[in-house]
Amino acid sequence: MRIGRDVVVPWLAAAALLWSAAPAQAQERQPNRPNIVFMLADNLGYGELGVYGGGVLRGAPTPRIDTLASQGLRLLNFNVEAQCTPTRAALLTGRFSIRSGTYQVPLGGEPDGLTLWEVTLAELLSERGYATGMWGKWHLGSDESRFPTQQGFDEWYGIPRTYDEAMWSTLNESKGLWPSIGGGQGWSGKHAPLQPIYEARKGEKARKVGELDLDRRRTMEAEITAHAVDFIRRQGKAGKPFFAYVSFSLVHMPTLPGPDFAGRTGNGNWADCLAEIDHRAGQVLDAIREAGVEDNTLVVFASDNGPEATHPWEGSGGPWRGTYFTAMEASLRTPFILRWPGRVPPGRVSNEIVHVVDLYTTLARVGGADVPTDRPIDGVDQLDFFLGKKESSNREGFVAYVADRLSAIKWRNWKVHFFWQENMYDVPQRLPIPKVVNLLTDPREERDVAVHNSWAGVPIRRIRAEFQESLKKYPPIPLGTPDPYVPPR
Amino acid sequence: MRIGRDVVVPWLAAAALLWSAAPAQAQERQPNRPNIVFMLADNLGYGELGVYGGGVLRGAPTPRIDTLASQGLRLLNFNVEAQCTPTRAALLTGRFSIRSGTYQVPLGGEPDGLTLWEVTLAELLSERGYATGMWGKWHLGSDESRFPTQQGFDEWYGIPRTYDEAMWSTLNESKGLWPSIGGGQGWSGKHAPLQPIYEARKGEKARKVGELDLDRRRTMEAEITAHAVDFIRRQGKAGKPFFAYVSFSLVHMPTLPGPDFAGRTGNGNWADCLAEIDHRAGQVLDAIREAGVEDNTLVVFASDNGPEATHPWEGSGGPWRGTYFTAMEASLRTPFILRWPGRVPPGRVSNEIVHVVDLYTTLARVGGADVPTDRPIDGVDQLDFFLGKKESSNREGFVAYVADRLSAIKWRNWKVHFFWQENMYDVPQRLPIPKVVNLLTDPREERDVAVHNSWAGVPIRRIRAEFQESLKKYPPIPLGTPDPYVPPR
Repeated sequence: MRIGRDVVVPWLAAAALLWSAAPAQAQERQPNRPNIVFMLADNLGYGELGVYGGGVLRGAPTPRIDTLASQGLRLLNFNVEAQCTPTRAALLTGRFSIRSGTYQVPLGGEPDGLTLWEVTLAELLSERGYATGMWGKWHLGSDESRFPTQQGFDEWYGIPRTYDEAMWSTLNESKGLWPSIGGGQGWSGKHAPLQPIYEARKGEKARKVGELDLDRRRTMEAEITAHAVDFIRRQGKAGKPFFAYVSFSLVHMPTLPGPDFAGRTGNGNWADCLAEIDHRAGQVLDAIREAGVEDNTLVVFASDNGPEATHPWEGSGGPWRGTYFTAMEASLRTPFILRWPGRVPPGRVSNEIVHVVDLYTTLARVGGADVPTDRPIDGVDQLDFFLGKKESSNREGFVAYVADRLSAIKWRNWKVHFFWQENMYDVPQRLPIPKVVNLLTDPREERDVAVHNSWAGVPIRRIRAEFQESLKKYPPIPLGTPDPYVPPR
Repeated sequence: MRIGRDVVVPWLAAAALLWSAAPAQAQERQPNRPNIVFMLADNLGYGELGVYGGGVLRGAPTPRIDTLASQGLRLLNFNVEAQCTPTRAALLTGRFSIRSGTYQVPLGGEPDGLTLWEVTLAELLSERGYATGMWGKWHLGSDESRFPTQQGFDEWYGIPRTYDEAMWSTLNESKGLWPSIGGGQGWSGKHAPLQPIYEARKGEKARKVGELDLDRRRTMEAEITAHAVDFIRRQGKAGKPFFAYVSFSLVHMPTLPGPDFAGRTGNGNWADCLAEIDHRAGQVLDAIREAGVEDNTLVVFASDNGPEATHPWEGSGGPWRGTYFTAMEASLRTPFILRWPGRVPPGRVSNEIVHVVDLYTTLARVGGADVPTDRPIDGVDQLDFFLGKKESSNREGFVAYVADRLSAIKWRNWKVHFFWQENMYDVPQRLPIPKVVNLLTDPREERDVAVHNSWAGVPIRRIRAEFQESLKKYPPIPLGTPDPYVPPR
């Protein structure tokens, strides 16, 4: 939602007042509002970082991110949606992607991304006086009318869609990619132009500053970091709180390190990329410290979904099974580290369930904002849990959609699969009888224990019934819905 | 080998002199010899401890062992043999079990275990003036002539064979075991007596102090720990160096917690057992501190092989694939933590390859002893690596036997499988073409990359050729060989 848009539906204006009225009390609740730096890696599986059992096991230590974890809270049961676009929509709206028409990337040509009717975290924080910036992959609308600068961000640098498109380029074979890929054969910019790289400021027309070919793909991580660091330096002086959404490009395929990191580890591209993302995250952390705002800055490092499934860029889900765009644990559980000096106890590790939609509600509260009340918000406030005021999360479970299929439901250490799909390239199989697994005793989701634990079906059926009831009451926005979107009443 | 045995083959006596002559220089090399406390868990997989990505993920935190890791060296590529008896033989002889007739447990009735001709680590250290004690499962000979007190240990408390036998007891169904097991039906001590629990001292006849039924199986961890703690207290006063081999009973099936730990975690028997083994290891560490010898005591915590394969006691290999008694990584890689205050740098983590046979050679050197020169010793000296004087291990690879099958060979981050077997209950399949996997990029051993990496076959073939040459020169001792054993010449 953009306040003061030319086209405003009456009831929607009312809703706008409804949530615009809240900040006064909100700010009293949260007088000294921290800066928020949200670093989101791309397709970085649970098993990649040293502190999650990866690091040197994957060919590269990750000392900067491991140290960050020791300074704050590390979650072992942080859950996302199954793919880039759905998770990014869930983070920015607090709503499962099935609600917002972003449950997968539509075919080229159709309108894609988030309707302007959604109220993004950036809009909430911007309304509360935050400076907001975003850098990297957006993946929530490839039309300029839906760019980050139309959804609450003051500035953006990056690409609207995905890094795969770098492989359109005929440079492939000559750039050290796996020879069997053969990408780009017969390609020409005439019939399929390369994806533009944009620089944009709120209220201005986005400027095209380049094209994503394989050379540029290799430098994106450095470019994203440089823009984020510049923003943090500027805001450190500006003396108003800021929200920095650093959308890293690694380890999304093609998983290629920057020139400074190629060959750094001696263990191949993947390990070089792990070394680079750790270094880039370290540069962002250095900028926060050098800007003198470290003590009042909440930092998150997370990933949008589980590991790549595409050879030679398979990632690691650590102890979990499966790849992204499935409902297996390796798809849903990603690293999550939160540091907030003086507020979040250091060195804490928890296996409590948190979902990416919760970040919307929790960070809105941290920023002194209230979430919309005219639509279902799935995120729950986890602030007391994050601050260590309570041991348990405010969430016991959630629905796991893959595209528009309700594929599984988690509740505590139990999970029910309605479909079975281990790899994004497998055809999902509807199970004749839902499969019940115990994630504590069976992390590989191998053994159906429904016969001994049919009781677990009771809370899980309740979660499903409540969500389906809510979908009836608030019909989901269809995939590819154009603006202006008006909810049916 | 026992020095001063009544029957001594002449050339063997010469060999005895050969290595008995060494201590003088050896002691000069190592004037202030530390105590050695070796804690060996049973079937504890790579994925169980908190510091290895388990802990709360498996239902129980492991704070004591995690803290121990932070005080010393933690290995990510510590390798064992594929089963209890082979690993325990390899640890005590420095020789792959295929050499010593201990590559698997023979059928009941045949002589089992280690011939007295082998020279155990306990014998080496005992010769150098160490007090030696061992508690828990021996599994290297169920005849009294091969008990620990005949193989270099001054004292022993425990069982000669395995904990499975506790399930012979008709108590099963009434003791909360998985109802489907149905063990013990029709059992009577008349035709199959329960396994005795022994207390033994060197030079004395072993005393039977109990029988291993399911009640006693639940108290074994506490009993083993109590004896180890008592020994450490006594030796702390005795003022001579000691070697304590604490052979824990958990998490071997039946995986049952002691009465004090049943229900402790609320997450079932397995998690309760994790909580108990962490507590017991903590009691051993407390005893070392309270005895005032912490600064001069080298402590190891490791496991004899990978996770259980038997429902409901499946364990976790973390990111690795397979179960024990296979050549998959989850079978071969186990936790390994080494603390030596002032000598081994704290907080170090390494993915360098170390094999359990190396502990024999390395700990012998630490204790001022030289290893036998009249037989092949497979262990290499890793002391400089452990001390941080060098970054790399002194081992690049090794042969992995499962029973008497050469199943795989590891070299650096490469592995070649000659047979395929993921689970101990599967029939091993001889592969028509050896499968080559890259353990850095493919921890699940899914993708055969031989076609792109046939070069890796060269160092791997060399390892195989050298080992097979050595087996020709020094014929392996057949399984179930009685004493006295005389090597063919």
